[in-house]
Amino acid sequence: MTIATRPTGSAADLRNRFAAVRGFTETLAAPLSAEDQTVQTMPDVSPTKWHRAHTTWFFETFVLSPHRPDHEVVDPAYGFLFNSYYETVGPRHARPQRGLLTRPGIAEIADYRRAVDAAMDDLLAAGELDPEVAGLVELGLHHEQQHQELLVMDIKHVLATNPLRPAYVDVGLPPPAPDPIGPRAAGWIEHPGGTVTVGHRGDGFGFDNEGPRHDTLVAPFALAAGLVTAGEWLAFIDDGGYHRPDLWMSDGWAAVQSQEWEAPAYWILGADGWSVLTLAGPRLVTADEPVVHVSWYEADAFARWAGCRLPSEAEWEVVAAERDPALTGPLPAAGLDEAGLDGTGLHPRPGGEGWCGAVWQWTASPYAPYPGFRPAAGAVGEYNGKFMVNQQALRGGACITPAGHTRASYRNFFYPGSRWAFSGVRLAADR
Amino acid sequence: MTIATRPTGSAADLRNRFAAVRGFTETLAAPLSAEDQTVQTMPDVSPTKWHRAHTTWFFETFVLSPHRPDHEVVDPAYGFLFNSYYETVGPRHARPQRGLLTRPGIAEIADYRRAVDAAMDDLLAAGELDPEVAGLVELGLHHEQQHQELLVMDIKHVLATNPLRPAYVDVGLPPPAPDPIGPRAAGWIEHPGGTVTVGHRGDGFGFDNEGPRHDTLVAPFALAAGLVTAGEWLAFIDDGGYHRPDLWMSDGWAAVQSQEWEAPAYWILGADGWSVLTLAGPRLVTADEPVVHVSWYEADAFARWAGCRLPSEAEWEVVAAERDPALTGPLPAAGLDEAGLDGTGLHPRPGGEGWCGAVWQWTASPYAPYPGFRPAAGAVGEYNGKFMVNQQALRGGACITPAGHTRASYRNFFYPGSRWAFSGVRLAADR
Amino acid sequence: MTIATRPTGSAADLRNRFAAVRGFTETLAAPLSAEDQTVQTMPDVSPTKWHRAHTTWFFETFVLSPHRPDHEVVDPAYGFLFNSYYETVGPRHARPQRGLLTRPGIAEIADYRRAVDAAMDDLLAAGELDPEVAGLVELGLHHEQQHQELLVMDIKHVLATNPLRPAYVDVGLPPPAPDPIGPRAAGWIEHPGGTVTVGHRGDGFGFDNEGPRHDTLVAPFALAAGLVTAGEWLAFIDDGGYHRPDLWMSDGWAAVQSQEWEAPAYWILGADGWSVLTLAGPRLVTADEPVVHVSWYEADAFARWAGCRLPSEAEWEVVAAERDPALTGPLPAAGLDEAGLDGTGLHPRPGGEGWCGAVWQWTASPYAPYPGFRPAAGAVGEYNGKFMVNQQALRGGACITPAGHTRASYRNFFYPGSRWAFSGVRLAADR
Amino acid sequence: MTIATRPTGSAADLRNRFAAVRGFTETLAAPLSAEDQTVQTMPDVSPTKWHRAHTTWFFETFVLSPHRPDHEVVDPAYGFLFNSYYETVGPRHARPQRGLLTRPGIAEIADYRRAVDAAMDDLLAAGELDPEVAGLVELGLHHEQQHQELLVMDIKHVLATNPLRPAYVDVGLPPPAPDPIGPRAAGWIEHPGGTVTVGHRGDGFGFDNEGPRHDTLVAPFALAAGLVTAGEWLAFIDDGGYHRPDLWMSDGWAAVQSQEWEAPAYWILGADGWSVLTLAGPRLVTADEPVVHVSWYEADAFARWAGCRLPSEAEWEVVAAERDPALTGPLPAAGLDEAGLDGTGLHPRPGGEGWCGAVWQWTASPYAPYPGFRPAAGAVGEYNGKFMVNQQALRGGACITPAGHTRASYRNFFYPGSRWAFSGVRLAADR
Repeated sequence: MTIATRPTGSAADLRNRFAAVRGFTETLAAPLSAEDQTVQTMPDVSPTKWHRAHTTWFFETFVLSPHRPDHEVVDPAYGFLFNSYYETVGPRHARPQRGLLTRPGIAEIADYRRAVDAAMDDLLAAGELDPEVAGLVELGLHHEQQHQELLVMDIKHVLATNPLRPAYVDVGLPPPAPDPIGPRAAGWIEHPGGTVTVGHRGDGFGFDNEGPRHDTLVAPFALAAGLVTAGEWLAFIDDGGYHRPDLWMSDGWAAVQSQEWEAPAYWILGADGWSVLTLAGPRLVTADEPVVHVSWYEADAFARWAGCRLPSEAEWEVVAAERDPALTGPLPAAGLDEAGLDGTGLHPRPGGEGWCGAVWQWTASPYAPYPGFRPAAGAVGEYNGKFMVNQQALRGGACITPAGHTRASYRNFFYPGSRWAFSGVRLAADR
Repeated sequence: MTIATRPTGSAADLRNRFAAVRGFTETLAAPLSAEDQTVQTMPDVSPTKWHRAHTTWFFETFVLSPHRPDHEVVDPAYGFLFNSYYETVGPRHARPQRGLLTRPGIAEIADYRRAVDAAMDDLLAAGELDPEVAGLVELGLHHEQQHQELLVMDIKHVLATNPLRPAYVDVGLPPPAPDPIGPRAAGWIEHPGGTVTVGHRGDGFGFDNEGPRHDTLVAPFALAAGLVTAGEWLAFIDDGGYHRPDLWMSDGWAAVQSQEWEAPAYWILGADGWSVLTLAGPRLVTADEPVVHVSWYEADAFARWAGCRLPSEAEWEVVAAERDPALTGPLPAAGLDEAGLDGTGLHPRPGGEGWCGAVWQWTASPYAPYPGFRPAAGAVGEYNGKFMVNQQALRGGACITPAGHTRASYRNFFYPGSRWAFSGVRLAADR
Repeated sequence: MTIATRPTGSAADLRNRFAAVRGFTETLAAPLSAEDQTVQTMPDVSPTKWHRAHTTWFFETFVLSPHRPDHEVVDPAYGFLFNSYYETVGPRHARPQRGLLTRPGIAEIADYRRAVDAAMDDLLAAGELDPEVAGLVELGLHHEQQHQELLVMDIKHVLATNPLRPAYVDVGLPPPAPDPIGPRAAGWIEHPGGTVTVGHRGDGFGFDNEGPRHDTLVAPFALAAGLVTAGEWLAFIDDGGYHRPDLWMSDGWAAVQSQEWEAPAYWILGADGWSVLTLAGPRLVTADEPVVHVSWYEADAFARWAGCRLPSEAEWEVVAAERDPALTGPLPAAGLDEAGLDGTGLHPRPGGEGWCGAVWQWTASPYAPYPGFRPAAGAVGEYNGKFMVNQQALRGGACITPAGHTRASYRNFFYPGSRWAFSGVRLAADR
Repeated sequence: MTIATRPTGSAADLRNRFAAVRGFTETLAAPLSAEDQTVQTMPDVSPTKWHRAHTTWFFETFVLSPHRPDHEVVDPAYGFLFNSYYETVGPRHARPQRGLLTRPGIAEIADYRRAVDAAMDDLLAAGELDPEVAGLVELGLHHEQQHQELLVMDIKHVLATNPLRPAYVDVGLPPPAPDPIGPRAAGWIEHPGGTVTVGHRGDGFGFDNEGPRHDTLVAPFALAAGLVTAGEWLAFIDDGGYHRPDLWMSDGWAAVQSQEWEAPAYWILGADGWSVLTLAGPRLVTADEPVVHVSWYEADAFARWAGCRLPSEAEWEVVAAERDPALTGPLPAAGLDEAGLDGTGLHPRPGGEGWCGAVWQWTASPYAPYPGFRPAAGAVGEYNGKFMVNQQALRGGACITPAGHTRASYRNFFYPGSRWAFSGVRLAADR
């Protein structure tokens, strides 16, 4: 947590960013009806209104209650309903039942957001904050950005479950295929191997799981300059990729069979061939777009089929840090902002090297603690550490990742069978 | 179906009743938010907005489409989404996923209702109807009344699932205990047995499952003059009723153990003793009120504990027909109307004989076809007949049954483990 | 239980019958290895060695322990392991885990049987028994005969689960099609209806569920003179019977879909058409043999397809009692004895009227208590009564029912989805 | 596979070892009845007779069939029944149904073993083998040793499921507490960190997953000189270890709650305190014995509670290789042989450093491929590689690991929730 709690700007800057981040959550929820915001279509999915309330509860519980002695909790019941997984804070509503709650409704949750925003604005308007408090606010903003991405992932699943196939943003159906933003980078980026240093550099915000920064040894390797495309994935399908057990991990093959996978999630086979369901509605798959919504099992099988492998976290990080200044430097990385809600930011677009702003990239690395990792004391220490088993790390950042949220050392993680994240593939090879 | 399709009044009368019944559905939905109307808290429950749409689909599908050649279907997708179980009509959306649909929302469904109501009013305003059509309209109205009761049962389950324990109607919390409407009838009503005639008499509307009217033999018996009360149920609990396998059917005992039943559904044990969750909020259990929300397994075990048994359908019908004129005659039977939404009609009240208007009464009879039963041809023939296995018959009518909907020959049915209906107990004994 | 405990012969007769019945269980187990006798292939199935031990426990628990004060229980642990469902007697091993017990093995269980048989023989050799004790011995013998049939049903399921398709008796593979024992009875047996009397007459042994004998009213009807054949079932299959929801009860259609039924249990579609798995191995289905291993759902759907219905219990009983003297008179009814283990008694044979000795016949009647039914006090009262919900009654007796075990008033019962019993169909029709 | 297929001795040596290893499997099965050898008490467990057949199938399929052209397959059906997971070889019987097979019985399986052993002896007696064939024989022997350990783990679970608590070896009940073989090593073994080299050295047999040997960086660390004891585990229990979510991974805490863990597997709380079920029967837990049958989740939580962590694979390997000559040198490591079947080899004994011969030691390392890992071509390439996700690596070797089977570079692996292996804990700490 030492990394995570480091404040990164002036008080005024923090106040402005608080308003911007909080406002963007409401912008994301705006196209959605009360009904849309209420349901939960699988245990992994949370209702939109739950995301809106939970992120608010985070600021109330970790900033206002401990650091504003006069703060009166808006509704004591919300502590039970909107705690996600912080065991230390107390009991909580069961996750798979979030979609059974009709009250509080979206009007009450909007009230809740307004009340907490007002109290937070009071706090932030008061000038320089105690660094610990500033660090918690910073953490809360990054936390809210993570939930912005989850909100979009989740509502995509909700809408896709509906046989009417409603779009999240209605920009004309079928939406035009996204314009290429340039040719996809081809070929391989070579690396000689040796001792490399990975982990958060300490300049600016980072989550606790990005540190400690440390040295590690890598053998000579190469990373693909571009992402695996839908066209390449079609070749994998056509070559029987989903029907050849020799390509799959044992657990992956079991998933293929029990879930009857034949293609990435949200792909639908019709008379005209494969379509992909986007947040702006369904359209035909195009060869150049990056493949997205594949599980780690599929990514791993594809890499084996291609005679390659997935990159390790360290390999990805050292190359990405050199190639994409947005991932380390002061410029905001690509990602979702208000402009992208015209549809252009809601599905990965072809072209370029794609380190960030298209899809998250599965790595070969199980998500595990870095050497010397220590979670923070107290409830916020539950943020990352307790998930460090059974999941695989992803790197990069997707088109729906809020702009500026990610970086080269950022470690995302999902179970290897998950497909509802905007997850894709970059290949690696031994040299 | 011959019974069911018999028209029972003038064209003007049918038009008025159509407006009244359709309007009452909207009255029942009015206290509920868009969120409330969307979720499904167990497979048996349907969302309020689904009930509103499905009853509308029924008129559109079985009246307008076949009998108004110029009727344009409001939305072809609704045929898939809002078909409940009519296999003959075509494929349908899976029942356990009704709560995953956020669109159409309540605004679109209100539009749907208005469009179908307008088309129906055109039809009904045109004067005398073809008897077959009039019969289908009649059937649709009784169908809608059944869904009104289901809507209330279902929303009770939805709200009770919420840890905030919201009330359906807010009439002050805790609501006053209902006033007794008179002392509970005591003692037994004796019957000498012999050949009795049961089934719908043919005067007025009846469902197909109520016929053919036929003779059957019953041995001498007696029925309790009043309903089993919550006070008597407490004695059963205190005597270890839920912990004595000798009192239970084998399948019932399995349900007690797997579902950890310790009391009727919606009973909550607190510091002050047992409370009951009503649609107007929780309040302490009172001794005189009829027990409600018990499964057939519990009703059967209670009867065994009491040294009695449950009545057969025939026993119940012949006695009830004599005792309660409202159940056979021209007067509307007790039940829910707008006045009851002040809270008085939402929970069974103590007193009287309780044949109708308090709780449905489980019978010892498995729900099975009467001798010579034939369902109607076509889709409406799926209405009742295909459920005639694995369920138990109930008789009477509950406080939330729409006023005028039930009668002595009316056969309700649920699985023996169901508890979300307003189901209670009347005892019987051999003589 | 008054019926069940009535002794039916001299002391010497009872002693001889005890030896014969107990010995036949061992005869049935003899072709089976220790491995065969140990496993449980679904929760409904019990291991052969469990049947051998449980029937022994029945005599020890209900006869020896209460009535032979000096009897020392062979192994106190057996009371826990081999109690089937007698809650009153104490806790018991969970039914679905019977197949996980490797000890006691078949050698110990043979010892257990020998020890209890010796103690029982001492008791039975002592001359006239107290009538209550004699009644319990009688009950135990009929109980053991029921388990003999279950043992054969169960081992058929165990062996059929094995991809090697081993036969229970090895009489040459493929076994010859059974010889017809005469032409199948054709046409209908008419009955004028009216008041009929059903239930056990009181002469000889009967289970408690067969009484009280009582009058009931039946409308004019007819029963098919013969059983539904495999050839007729093929016509049902060919006509899309398993793909037409209009033919099925709602719960039945759900079973068809979830269990992917396309034919009776143990039917296998091969290059040469349908084969049926018998206890003597697989062979081609023959047109004249009675269909067997169909669920009630299938029987009901078939009857609807044929424009008929299933008989009620009362209809079946009054006609059968007149047609088949073996079912009421002193002659042993058809059924399994040692001679039948040459293969001829292990699968229903074509021909005749088939009231008994071919297949159990599903009725339209839910299994429910007769008017005035009272189970016996104590543990043996759990024998039948607590299963009187959710199941359907069957009548007749199958080829594997021990010879002499059944009668016209005998009420068998299974859940409507069960198929591992030797259950078939006789049609009925209204007149 | 290059490592795995390297032959390690003369032809005569291989022939002798073949006879010894195959014979030891039969020695392990000898105390078990046909019934014991047949059942499967959870999906992870395989029946003893399946282990005996599968290991035989391995030699037949991978050695005899491809390399002895005149070999006639003993029974073609065995290829389907006894293939464990080699997708490349063909379809196979579903793993969770292994316990439903009663045939072939143990007699037929003994015949199968004899037939294959005879054919193998012919092959091995012929003098120097083709190195590829010799490598496959070598692999088959190590494979069989792995199944010997599984056989013992599995039969422990089978016997422990039986309420009679039978012992695998009957050496008197309660068996004496094992004699300490010396005091437990105390304190910490320090390591300065730096670049270390891990993986199989290439001298002698190794599995493919142990290579390629490679350098890796480790930070300064220390490993506990001895294993975590049962006494220390009792302190963890007494301190509420199983009730403090802050100590657990999120998935681990879910397992604690759903499986109601309160202690290691096979621990039973009685009037006298905790007993542990051993293969020689139950006895009281002793403070000094190494704790065993804990999941990775428990090991990880314990380490956190103790203010430590689990070692990485590399840390464990470099220290163990220096401390325990048996793990690298020519001497056989500790483990199970015939002498240990007197009971002394069936449960971990206290004392010493315990690198090998007591319990497998969970590491912090997810089981993943080493840099440059390539599985062999063909079916034997499925041996290890396809399990390299979702599991955690263990190091060392347990008391029931066949003597001589393990080594410092040996990588065992189980899912983090598994407890039926002989798995324990060694602590590590950062320096």
